Amino acid sequence: MKKTLRAVTASVAFLCSNAAIAEPKNIIYMIGDGMGPAYTSAYRYYIDDPKTKHVDNTIFDEILVGMAHTYPDDDTVVTDSAAGATALSTATKSYNGAIAVDTKKAPLKTMLEIAKEKGMVTALIATSQINHATPASFAAHNESRRNYDQIADDYVDNKIAGKLPVDLLLGGGTQYFKRDDRNLVKEFTDAGYQYADSLSDLHKLTQIPALGLFAPKGLPYAIDEHPNRLEQMTKKALSLLDSNKDNGFFVMIEGSQIDWCGHANDIACAMREMHDFAQSIKLAKAYVDKNPDTLLVITADHSTGGLTLGANGKYLWLRDVVKGVSASASILTKQMMASDDLEKLWSQYTQLPYNKATAILLKEAKSGGEKALKKVIKQIINKASYTGWTTGGHTAIDVQVFAHGKGYEKFIGSQNNTEIAEKLISYIK
Amino acid sequence: MKKTLRAVTASVAFLCSNAAIAEPKNIIYMIGDGMGPAYTSAYRYYIDDPKTKHVDNTIFDEILVGMAHTYPDDDTVVTDSAAGATALSTATKSYNGAIAVDTKKAPLKTMLEIAKEKGMVTALIATSQINHATPASFAAHNESRRNYDQIADDYVDNKIAGKLPVDLLLGGGTQYFKRDDRNLVKEFTDAGYQYADSLSDLHKLTQIPALGLFAPKGLPYAIDEHPNRLEQMTKKALSLLDSNKDNGFFVMIEGSQIDWCGHANDIACAMREMHDFAQSIKLAKAYVDKNPDTLLVITADHSTGGLTLGANGKYLWLRDVVKGVSASASILTKQMMASDDLEKLWSQYTQLPYNKATAILLKEAKSGGEKALKKVIKQIINKASYTGWTTGGHTAIDVQVFAHGKGYEKFIGSQNNTEIAEKLISYIK
Ligand SMILES: [Zn+2]
Ligand SMILES: [Zn+2]
Repeated sequence: MKKTLRAVTASVAFLCSNAAIAEPKNIIYMIGDGMGPAYTSAYRYYIDDPKTKHVDNTIFDEILVGMAHTYPDDDTVVTDSAAGATALSTATKSYNGAIAVDTKKAPLKTMLEIAKEKGMVTALIATSQINHATPASFAAHNESRRNYDQIADDYVDNKIAGKLPVDLLLGGGTQYFKRDDRNLVKEFTDAGYQYADSLSDLHKLTQIPALGLFAPKGLPYAIDEHPNRLEQMTKKALSLLDSNKDNGFFVMIEGSQIDWCGHANDIACAMREMHDFAQSIKLAKAYVDKNPDTLLVITADHSTGGLTLGANGKYLWLRDVVKGVSASASILTKQMMASDDLEKLWSQYTQLPYNKATAILLKEAKSGGEKALKKVIKQIINKASYTGWTTGGHTAIDVQVFAHGKGYEKFIGSQNNTEIAEKLISYIK
Repeated sequence: MKKTLRAVTASVAFLCSNAAIAEPKNIIYMIGDGMGPAYTSAYRYYIDDPKTKHVDNTIFDEILVGMAHTYPDDDTVVTDSAAGATALSTATKSYNGAIAVDTKKAPLKTMLEIAKEKGMVTALIATSQINHATPASFAAHNESRRNYDQIADDYVDNKIAGKLPVDLLLGGGTQYFKRDDRNLVKEFTDAGYQYADSLSDLHKLTQIPALGLFAPKGLPYAIDEHPNRLEQMTKKALSLLDSNKDNGFFVMIEGSQIDWCGHANDIACAMREMHDFAQSIKLAKAYVDKNPDTLLVITADHSTGGLTLGANGKYLWLRDVVKGVSASASILTKQMMASDDLEKLWSQYTQLPYNKATAILLKEAKSGGEKALKKVIKQIINKASYTGWTTGGHTAIDVQVFAHGKGYEKFIGSQNNTEIAEKLISYIK
């Protein structure tokens, strides 16, 4: 295959100058967890300026180049985030739950590890705990994504040429890094890492290596707090990496909670996560435009929730209903459980009428407890906006591939998720 | 290997920016009605050979180049097939229901009409009635897709340079073409068209112009009868067009009933339609490979049903359950309504167990009538296979774009459905 590629590339070079696919020096790899094609379509309509007649293209539309197949290495067809990230980081399909190990639970070398071996600077950014399945599959190895402590330990213990594998980590997870049995934060700072433990201290990180942990587990939803926390972390990461790019850098940036809102079937929550991810992509694309030796590749590990725009027979999706919701169903439920004034909260956090039917539904659900109330809140919003969902889990639809910058041409077309990793590794090696 | 070649070839087009993209002489435009991305993903797993470890690429995977936005020219976000086909044939967005007319109901010139003006041979092939929304939007103009008689009349009356607009029509629709008030079939034959009225007489069509109408309205579902009827019509069409290609040809081939099975939420039905469409694409691709002055472009007008692989929280899609179903829910229901032996029919047409729970569900549903029984049959199959649906209508997810042959590079990336038409028209003009 390589021979053919080289032969064709050579003939291309003969046909027109500057034609060989150039190898990028820096790689920005972004993963929208759970971001199936319905999410990017929804985001286009959600974010569109209603004052203009036409529908504007999104950042996703600007750089779409192909799609990817997400099935894991078993007969389920439907992948989880661990097997998905393992394929995307090691070019090998594994079982659901696997963190960069193969079906025999043997460790698989990841592209971040290869980058580190090559002397590149490495970074992992996420809105989940930084030891969650997707980032974990780049720098740790474990038979189960649930072994959070062991995975966090790997970020110190998985030495490459005597050094910690990841030079810059930004995300959540203090509860796994400061434990009774081991204080990883101290081990990081002893190893020379700067440390920040709140987003407001992000500016205090002034050099690499650095560790930022901004929540006990995942960061709060964008819709509830810090709507642009991924954008902020991305900005900081690109700035720090730019000062350390002599040997090139590799960074994986995850929009982790698109998936979580999808699991919750919470459309307003999902759209705010999409927006934070989209704004982060804009920063990455701008970086590539200024630094043309950089490659930006974006994909998803799978889609979540079976999201559809239009539901129940109606040819309609009401983005304004979604735009009008300003809290996650989770937070709105908690506040309603603690208050007697449901109407006030409903009107504060949604633009939907508090009519008789809604009042009865909410009151009855509340008497059934928090879970019942949360379910009904989401049902009302989904029904009113004609948003459809089929599951609280994942689905097997192909996901999109976006690429921009040096060497992006390789990602045009349909490909397996493992092929995305193969192509990136071919650039790192 | 082919894929690498393809990616490099694609990149050539980009890298050689001053190299003009060559213009194709013949255009094969294929539309999978309702074929959103979940359908092509599902088809990959449905058709995969279970004896091999890896999952084989489909014909769709070989030629994917981008995606398209399907929203109509109103605030619904969700399009119908008429507005979708109008955009895909005229490069103008219109309202749901519009057949090649704009929002003021004025006729829009279609790419088929432009092709005919240029002296190209024109053809429309569909498994629906040939005057159904998608083919109609290429050669007729009407304020409503429901005016089937007027649309059929247009195929005779919509003269271009004194001639009928379409040289070859294959599909269903005798009830609209042989009416009490007008016999269009006679008008066609008077104008020199050969005519066949059954698929078994397809071989009797030996030259263009020709008309083939093989059912009163749409043809039966592929799963119930003639599983390869679109493939047969495509083969015949390409053979006849190949003998008339001096001035080039334009043909639109629609897999019409992917959409219909989607509306019915009938997954086995949908997969058989996908297979007939995929086999037809293989023929078209083979034609392009032999005739490199030809361009093949494939897309969908929208997705239907909110199909998902995986549902109800389970990370699983059981293709074998789908493969085991050998009748549409429609036909199975009709047979069950007319028989006392539900077990025999269930075991004949599905590979699912006829256990106590199934027996009770089916018997109770049957007592509620045909509609209730059909609903329950589909519920059992969808539940057993973990297939999800959210609607009996359409959804607004972006659809895929596939292209192969001369000039295919223009279709790489994300685009509006109207842009697909613009690009094709630029080749025809
Ligand atoms: Zn998930
Ligand atoms: Zn339809």
